[in-house]
Amino acid sequence: MRVIDGGVTAAKGFAAAGCMAGVKYENRLDMALVYSEKPCTAAGVFTKNVVKAAPVIWDQRVIREGTGKVHAIVVNTGIANAGTGKEGLQHCEETAEKTAEVLGIRKDEVITGSTGVIGPQLNMNAVLSGVDKLKDSLSESREAAHTAAKAIMTTDTHPKECAVDFEIEGKTVTLGGMAKGSGMIHPNMGTMLSYMTTDISISKELLQKALAETAADTFNMISVDGDTSTNDTLVILANGEAGNAEITSEDDGYRIFKEALFHVAKDLARKLAGDGEGATKLITCRVINAADKKKAKVLAKSVITSSLTKAAIYGNDANWGRILCAMGYSGAQFDPDKLDIFFDAEGCEVIHIYHDGATVPYSEEEATALLKHEEVLITVDMKEGSEEATAWGCDLTHDYVSINADYRS
Amino acid sequence: MRVIDGGVTAAKGFAAAGCMAGVKYENRLDMALVYSEKPCTAAGVFTKNVVKAAPVIWDQRVIREGTGKVHAIVVNTGIANAGTGKEGLQHCEETAEKTAEVLGIRKDEVITGSTGVIGPQLNMNAVLSGVDKLKDSLSESREAAHTAAKAIMTTDTHPKECAVDFEIEGKTVTLGGMAKGSGMIHPNMGTMLSYMTTDISISKELLQKALAETAADTFNMISVDGDTSTNDTLVILANGEAGNAEITSEDDGYRIFKEALFHVAKDLARKLAGDGEGATKLITCRVINAADKKKAKVLAKSVITSSLTKAAIYGNDANWGRILCAMGYSGAQFDPDKLDIFFDAEGCEVIHIYHDGATVPYSEEEATALLKHEEVLITVDMKEGSEEATAWGCDLTHDYVSINADYRS
Repeated sequence: MRVIDGGVTAAKGFAAAGCMAGVKYENRLDMALVYSEKPCTAAGVFTKNVVKAAPVIWDQRVIREGTGKVHAIVVNTGIANAGTGKEGLQHCEETAEKTAEVLGIRKDEVITGSTGVIGPQLNMNAVLSGVDKLKDSLSESREAAHTAAKAIMTTDTHPKECAVDFEIEGKTVTLGGMAKGSGMIHPNMGTMLSYMTTDISISKELLQKALAETAADTFNMISVDGDTSTNDTLVILANGEAGNAEITSEDDGYRIFKEALFHVAKDLARKLAGDGEGATKLITCRVINAADKKKAKVLAKSVITSSLTKAAIYGNDANWGRILCAMGYSGAQFDPDKLDIFFDAEGCEVIHIYHDGATVPYSEEEATALLKHEEVLITVDMKEGSEEATAWGCDLTHDYVSINADYRS
Repeated sequence: MRVIDGGVTAAKGFAAAGCMAGVKYENRLDMALVYSEKPCTAAGVFTKNVVKAAPVIWDQRVIREGTGKVHAIVVNTGIANAGTGKEGLQHCEETAEKTAEVLGIRKDEVITGSTGVIGPQLNMNAVLSGVDKLKDSLSESREAAHTAAKAIMTTDTHPKECAVDFEIEGKTVTLGGMAKGSGMIHPNMGTMLSYMTTDISISKELLQKALAETAADTFNMISVDGDTSTNDTLVILANGEAGNAEITSEDDGYRIFKEALFHVAKDLARKLAGDGEGATKLITCRVINAADKKKAKVLAKSVITSSLTKAAIYGNDANWGRILCAMGYSGAQFDPDKLDIFFDAEGCEVIHIYHDGATVPYSEEEATALLKHEEVLITVDMKEGSEEATAWGCDLTHDYVSINADYRS
C-alpha cells in the first residue's frame, strides 16, 4: 500500500465539484458533488442518534432499499436539515431528484448530505441552482476533489483528504476520501460527514462489513465534545473501474483492501480530532495490555472525552489524576493500583508519570514542554492482558467556547 | 417544614469549625470539622468511580463496618488524597486517629473527606496541626457552620448551606447541610462533598434508604462537566437530640423527614450546579409526561450535560437543535416528531420553541433576553405518559476552560 496525494477523485472514474450556492452564507463554498458514471456498490454507516437528519434517513433508504447502485453524492453545508420534520425529508428528495435529473440517473441512486445548524429548513432555491453549478464544474482533477473537500467544511480550519493505492492480483486499486468535523463530534457509527471513493470491485456485503468494522476502530474512536451529531454519515462508493475480479470472500484481496481502508479512515479520523473546534492539539490515548478489546476502547475513549483532561492538556498541565479519574468513571473495571501511565510526543523522552497507585517523580518543566507539542500521546499500560485500542481527541480551549457560544450569530 | 438560616450546626448538639491549616495554600480556610458529642447514626453515598479516593474507602468502612456510631467529620481541601495508593490510606487513618484523640472518641467514629488535586500525598504536618486548631475553635454557632462551609470550598465562588426544621409528633426536628463543587462534577451516587446533620432519631437502615433515594433525584441529577470525581461523598449524621421516638418504619415521620431531606439536598445540588466552574447561570431541564421515570431522568441529564447546549446558553443562543440532539444520543428511545420544547425564566413569557418535528416561530430577540437570566428552565414535554424528572447544570464558559487549564499552577 502506498499513500498518494489525492481525495475523492483519486480512484478511476470519479469526478467531483464544489461551488458557492449561498445556502446560508454568501461567497463561501457550501455545496459539493461526487459522481461516477459507472454505477457504484455503496455502503454506509450512520449516526445512532434517535434524532436523525433528513439526509441520514434518505441515505439509509438508498443504501438498503434502492437499486443497489449509487452514482452520486450531493452535500450542502450551513444547514443540517435535522429537526425539520416531513418538510425536511421532502427537501432532501427534491435535492436528489434535481441531481438525478442533471446527471441522467435515478433519484434513488443519489446519496445526500447536510451539515450545519439544526432546525431551519433548507433554502431550496439556493440548493437547486447549486446543483446546476456543481454539474457544470464536475471534473476528475485533483483540484476538483480538493474543492469538494473544502465545500463540505463548516467550522473546520482546513479540508481533510487522504488517498492510497495498492495492488490486488496485479491490478492497481485506488481509494480516496474526504471528511469534515469539527463540533458535535462524538461519532457513534460514522462521523459528521465522510465520503470515500474507490475503483475496487467488491460485493456490497463485504464493502459494508469492511466499512462498519473499520469505522468502529477509527471514526467511532474520536471525540471532540461528547455530542453525537444528528447527521453523522460515512459512505463509500466502489465503481469497479480497477478491473480486479470482484471480491466476494474474505480472501487476500479483501484483507489488502481493508488495510487500505483502515489507513484512510484512521488518517481522516485523526485529522477530524486534531481539527476539533478550537483545538490547538491532537490528543491520542492508547490503552495497551488490556484484558479485552472492548475494555481498552472504553478506557481510551473516556480519557480523550474528559473535559477536565482536555482542558489540562490545553494548559500544558501534566495532570494525570484527571486521566486516572476518567478511566475510573468509564464503566470499565480495573485495579488503579496496577497500571502505568506515560506521556509522549515526537522528539521527547517518554515520561513515565504513574505506576501502580502512585505518581512517579518527574520534571514538571519537561512535562510542560512535552505537552506543548501539537500531538500528545497518552499511553496506559493495564498490565492485565494483550488487547489494545487507540482513541483520538483534542484539547478543550477558549476558542471551543467562543465558537459554540456564537455559532448562529 | 420551614426553611431556616443555618448549616451543619442548625440541628441540636452539632458543633463545627474551619481553619487555615496550610495543606496546600497558605492563608486560606482549608480544613473543617463537624462534631456531635452524642453518637450519631450515619449514612452515606459515595462515588461509583473505580478509582476511589482514600477517604471514600475509609468512610465506606466506617459506615459499613464501624461501631455503627459516628461522632465527627474532618475534611481538608487542596489535595484530594486520590491516586495515592497505600500511603494515602495511611494518611487518612492518621487523620482519623488524631481527630479521635483530640475529641476523646474512637478513630472508626470519624468520617474523613478530601478534595483538591489528584495525585500528591497529603502534607501530614499541616493536617495534624490543623486538627488541633479545629478542636480549639469548635462551636455550635451559626458562624461556625458558615466557616466550615467556606473551609470545604475549592474553586467554588461561595459557600453552600441549607437548613430546615419540621415537626414530628410535636417535636421540632432540624436538618442542615453544606456542600462544595464545583469542577469534576457529574455525581454518580453522591456529589463532590456534602455533609448534613440532623437531630432526628432514626434507624440506620431508614436513614441510608432516605439518603440514597434522595441523592438519586438531587445530587445525581446535576452535572458541571461530565467528569465523575474520585471523591464524591454525601454523608448524613443523625444524633437523636430532637427527642422524637426513633423512626423505624416508613411512617408519617419518615415521610416528613424525607421531604425535608429532599428540600435540603435539592437546594444544595442546585447551588452546586449554579456555581459550577466558570458558570454564569443555572440551567434546569425538566422532562415531563415521559413514559417512565428512568427515561425522563436520562433525557434531562443528557441535555444539561451537552457541551454544545451549555455553550449555546452561555452565548444566550436559543439553539434548541442542540437540545434535541442531546436527547437523541442519550440512549433513550422516543419519536422526535412528537414532542415540545419550551424555554422559561423568571418574569418572562414562556417561549414555545419546538413542536412535533419543527420549530415554532419565535422572536430571537425575546429568546436571547430570556436566556440572559441567571436561571434558565428548559421544559421538554414528551407527551407519552405521566412521569417526570429534573436535572440541573450550568453553562460552559471561557472561565471553565481558564480554571481547568491553569488549575495546578
